[in-house]
Amino acid sequence: MIRHQYRCSVRWSDMDVYGHVNNSVFLTYLEEARGDMLGRQASTAGVGTFAAGCVSAKHEIEYKAPLEWREATVAVEVWVTGLRAASFSLAYEVKDERTLYARAASTMVPYDLESRCPRRLTEPERAYLTRFLTQH
Amino acid sequence: MIRHQYRCSVRWSDMDVYGHVNNSVFLTYLEEARGDMLGRQASTAGVGTFAAGCVSAKHEIEYKAPLEWREATVAVEVWVTGLRAASFSLAYEVKDERTLYARAASTMVPYDLESRCPRRLTEPERAYLTRFLTQH
Amino acid sequence: MIRHQYRCSVRWSDMDVYGHVNNSVFLTYLEEARGDMLGRQASTAGVGTFAAGCVSAKHEIEYKAPLEWREATVAVEVWVTGLRAASFSLAYEVKDERTLYARAASTMVPYDLESRCPRRLTEPERAYLTRFLTQH
Amino acid sequence: MIRHQYRCSVRWSDMDVYGHVNNSVFLTYLEEARGDMLGRQASTAGVGTFAAGCVSAKHEIEYKAPLEWREATVAVEVWVTGLRAASFSLAYEVKDERTLYARAASTMVPYDLESRCPRRLTEPERAYLTRFLTQH
Repeated sequence: MIRHQYRCSVRWSDMDVYGHVNNSVFLTYLEEARGDMLGRQASTAGVGTFAAGCVSAKHEIEYKAPLEWREATVAVEVWVTGLRAASFSLAYEVKDERTLYARAASTMVPYDLESRCPRRLTEPERAYLTRFLTQH
Repeated sequence: MIRHQYRCSVRWSDMDVYGHVNNSVFLTYLEEARGDMLGRQASTAGVGTFAAGCVSAKHEIEYKAPLEWREATVAVEVWVTGLRAASFSLAYEVKDERTLYARAASTMVPYDLESRCPRRLTEPERAYLTRFLTQH
Repeated sequence: MIRHQYRCSVRWSDMDVYGHVNNSVFLTYLEEARGDMLGRQASTAGVGTFAAGCVSAKHEIEYKAPLEWREATVAVEVWVTGLRAASFSLAYEVKDERTLYARAASTMVPYDLESRCPRRLTEPERAYLTRFLTQH
Repeated sequence: MIRHQYRCSVRWSDMDVYGHVNNSVFLTYLEEARGDMLGRQASTAGVGTFAAGCVSAKHEIEYKAPLEWREATVAVEVWVTGLRAASFSLAYEVKDERTLYARAASTMVPYDLESRCPRRLTEPERAYLTRFLTQH
């Protein structure tokens, strides 16, 4: 199993009144990690089509420990847990060496920006995602 | 069944490049509606203790239709789907007269800010939440 | 002198660790008020062209008092302090009945989204802005 | 003249509908760079007192070129342009090798969080800031 590794900066303004990264900001961290995997790294691997749009159909996130502001980045790991004709599932962990801050999962739908319609995964996309595929 | 009704403003900056309210911003809308129910309205009803802290343990959200910027507010309905000793479950719908934009659910944990520990629901809190309780 | 009046919601997540609305969020409040004046109200007055784009060239903002979270909206007043061939100046106050929270000023440049170039103000735009024109 | 150098990540959600980093987000970039200079680096230099609070009294920002999303960080340079008894002035540039995106200036006020009052700069703070002092 390969997990995509992303290092996410924590901004001071990500914190709320309680001094913890606000729970909605975690979805932004997932978005950054997902974009890095489906955008930058996929393009490097010759699969530039995700960049043309991929819509979030569902997110689930469990908060395991409060994340406080810190100078160091936090790690976001992303991998694929399911591949279907016109959608796929991702799992994530937000963590550092000592602590698991959140576990999350998303259902993603490839999207044709011009026709504004969902579309099927292409073969190169499927091959790329398969590298990150694991059962859980 | 009573659902708490909240009207949420849509800010121009809530939109992303695709011209839709970004998916992480929906969690902010839920937070506003939840705060209105557990903060303002609970205080009005004589239950001021939620304001001392309530932590999100889990969120699930399904995106049903893209929400574009608009002058009108969007409705967020919140209700209670489960009550346990030291946690409770909420459900939400983000919608207007014509469209359901998102359906969501949260697990919330009452929290003692001083001891930084989870705590049990008090009787007045339980009575307040029961007003909004439904099975699904 | 007419000032455009806008009521802005304060979100819980607008606050930072100090319990005050974060200073960058004030620019979002100005943006909402400006959009209401140059978008919605201008369109109602038959001047729909601002909506096609208007770029911020400069902002200045002085923070006069900390703004804490509150259920009530905060007022943002906007008016015009200068009109030039291809730019105009706005002034703002963020306040409520008792307190002035911030005073601000912007230089705005009408923008042609297709050619991606600055453009001159049209006569209808100039007439609309003149309603809000004052010397300071 | 020494300028403090900070590398700021650009998040996908920093962009607005026009595909440019939203103008309010630039203040967040300045905040990150300022926090790095007055927090992390000052603490490393033995001046830990800024971390106890420093309030923005004024910001000015000129937008010189649109900043689009990119994988690479953007540089934020910060330096000191004035030192007074109970306030100081900062200047900033947001840029990369090829483009200057924004120029900005802030007036900062040291703040005693306990008494909730402005306070004078201490001698170690003054000495630290002097390293970054230039006339313009």
